[in-house]
Amino acid sequence: MRDVCIVGIGQIPVGEHWDKSLRELGAEAVHLALLDAQIERPEALIVGNMLSGQISHQENLGALIADFAGLRGVEAVKVEAACASAAAALRQAYLLVAGGVMDVVVACGVEKMTDTAQDNTTAALAAAADAEYESEHGLSFVGLNGLLMQRYMYEYGYQHTDLANFAITAHRNAVNNPNAMFRKAITAEAFAKAKMIASPVCLLDSAGIADGAAAVVLAPSTLANALAKPKVCIAASAAATDSLALHDRHDLLELAAARISAQKAYAQAHTHPGEIDFFELHDAFTIISTLSLEACGFAERGRGARLAMENEISLQGRIPIATMGGLKARGHPVGATGIYQVIEAVQQLRGEAGANQLAGCRLGMTQNIGGSGANVITHILERVS
Amino acid sequence: MRDVCIVGIGQIPVGEHWDKSLRELGAEAVHLALLDAQIERPEALIVGNMLSGQISHQENLGALIADFAGLRGVEAVKVEAACASAAAALRQAYLLVAGGVMDVVVACGVEKMTDTAQDNTTAALAAAADAEYESEHGLSFVGLNGLLMQRYMYEYGYQHTDLANFAITAHRNAVNNPNAMFRKAITAEAFAKAKMIASPVCLLDSAGIADGAAAVVLAPSTLANALAKPKVCIAASAAATDSLALHDRHDLLELAAARISAQKAYAQAHTHPGEIDFFELHDAFTIISTLSLEACGFAERGRGARLAMENEISLQGRIPIATMGGLKARGHPVGATGIYQVIEAVQQLRGEAGANQLAGCRLGMTQNIGGSGANVITHILERVS
Repeated sequence: MRDVCIVGIGQIPVGEHWDKSLRELGAEAVHLALLDAQIERPEALIVGNMLSGQISHQENLGALIADFAGLRGVEAVKVEAACASAAAALRQAYLLVAGGVMDVVVACGVEKMTDTAQDNTTAALAAAADAEYESEHGLSFVGLNGLLMQRYMYEYGYQHTDLANFAITAHRNAVNNPNAMFRKAITAEAFAKAKMIASPVCLLDSAGIADGAAAVVLAPSTLANALAKPKVCIAASAAATDSLALHDRHDLLELAAARISAQKAYAQAHTHPGEIDFFELHDAFTIISTLSLEACGFAERGRGARLAMENEISLQGRIPIATMGGLKARGHPVGATGIYQVIEAVQQLRGEAGANQLAGCRLGMTQNIGGSGANVITHILERVS
Repeated sequence: MRDVCIVGIGQIPVGEHWDKSLRELGAEAVHLALLDAQIERPEALIVGNMLSGQISHQENLGALIADFAGLRGVEAVKVEAACASAAAALRQAYLLVAGGVMDVVVACGVEKMTDTAQDNTTAALAAAADAEYESEHGLSFVGLNGLLMQRYMYEYGYQHTDLANFAITAHRNAVNNPNAMFRKAITAEAFAKAKMIASPVCLLDSAGIADGAAAVVLAPSTLANALAKPKVCIAASAAATDSLALHDRHDLLELAAARISAQKAYAQAHTHPGEIDFFELHDAFTIISTLSLEACGFAERGRGARLAMENEISLQGRIPIATMGGLKARGHPVGATGIYQVIEAVQQLRGEAGANQLAGCRLGMTQNIGGSGANVITHILERVS
């Protein structure tokens, strides 16, 4: 396997883009990434997306976005793994370059969620869960996370507000991210008073609905040498799956696929949680942040929430997370999120993270989760120059 | 790049499966393919599917089908390229094995189209076209093919019945295929009298709506040596894209992506149309068969229809197509079709095609088309023992 670097990044500010269609968002992100990489035409485009069929009545996104990005003819395909679609697209692209079957591949994540009725989006998102055992019976995706959170709080004796710092930290970090949707700090009082969505999940426990697109250009390490930017390589890429339905898990409070994919990633990069400088985790819900920190070895079982309570997740903490706002405050355009996470990690490793820059960071981990932990893709990025 | 072989095949008979859900169809096909390959657990599962989100409110198919096929935990993802989704999944799987990043990968195509209202399926299929320029304005996918067919007949002076043999041949071949949906020969009279759908496309010009699933197991050639079956390798795999919208094509009557992907495939396999023993083409509509034969070099421009008129597409003809019934008569569960095509090619090359067996065939080509020629994936398979 060849070493693979991220030689170009491009992102559209996350938000409600009423003036831009799905294809325009995707094409613009691809264009920006190619510009950053100073590359004109990749060998392939892999597009991550979850909802375009359901919400925009548009499939065949690979060919569509290739065409509107000025790449007509190029090989292109869409990859879907629910909310982990973008990282899944990145992983496919990575494997093509690592295996030496292509040299320059673009991975793009794109999602347009706002241009429909709110309840349509909620129904569409439920397709990440098990249709036959969960969503057809009325369980929304937020509802599933409510069940998980309730069980966690019951099992380990936490209060709802014990998880507040996940949201507060994300919003504080988003203030300095020009690409974030919610550039506004929130207080513990606001968190405690937030509107209930699916008990105990409140509005400020969960990431909002958003439009967005983000793209990265991958190339072998040797080609990356020619570029001026600090070099960021993919030190590890790993994926694992679990049952979609929560009732069928061996252990409800362990994200087994997150654990397995993180362990594979640590092994590939010859590293361990103690060496990871920051973790762009999948904070779609505060309970998922908690469980991810535990599954990936940053906290003992039942102690993930304590990392938030003790402020160890801030930029100054032991394991900074959501350094540019995370899903919670940068925004969570589901099929694009995984590549936003990776771009933010690249920004940190290149030293381009502005006011949120972590000093001297070398290893950043990203984790994108599809469904309630059903498909989990972990990447470890490393600054090598 | 390593040589890659197809070491296992599994297919569900195409039809209306009211007693089987999407996941059951997919899991059964994966199970059959692994059984045929005598392999217990692959390193990854790539699922091709177009419509599950829109029709079954189910995404995250990679993890779902992995779990129900008894492969919980294994890396898995869904790939989408409209009606070319299955061949796109196969190509991703092929690239992983060819690049040496994995040894055993399963590609599965699955589609459940019948378990909804008929107009829902028609609307969902329109997502293969350009939503903003075509389908939102009322053009169905059949309507687009009607426009293409009308232009072709006008430009080259054909009558509708000149294309009859595409359908007649497919139905004749399907009679002997136990996995085909329509195992019934049709007459020229029936074709001429068939109900109009979108002028000039009649009922018998077009493939029907169906459920189905098919899977193949890929492994490097060296591993395939250990197996008893005749060895079938992937001599070429190539993809290309075009605009989704017909109005935006440089040339309405040339499937440019089909031409490019076929040319790439011929170059990879060091072959040319004259050496191809049979061609499993994408006969979703008779006009697409015609244009595909021209784009891939089996007929001059405007002469594709003549191959049907002169019976050169029959099992005894110069270039047999749809040897087990094709999309028209085996059936076209869209996101599964590309792998049915490949399995039928493997059956021919292994000598397992029964009454439809082509004597002494060595090279078979398959071509799967997403949208009206927007994403085209071509494979050339070769019997090497």
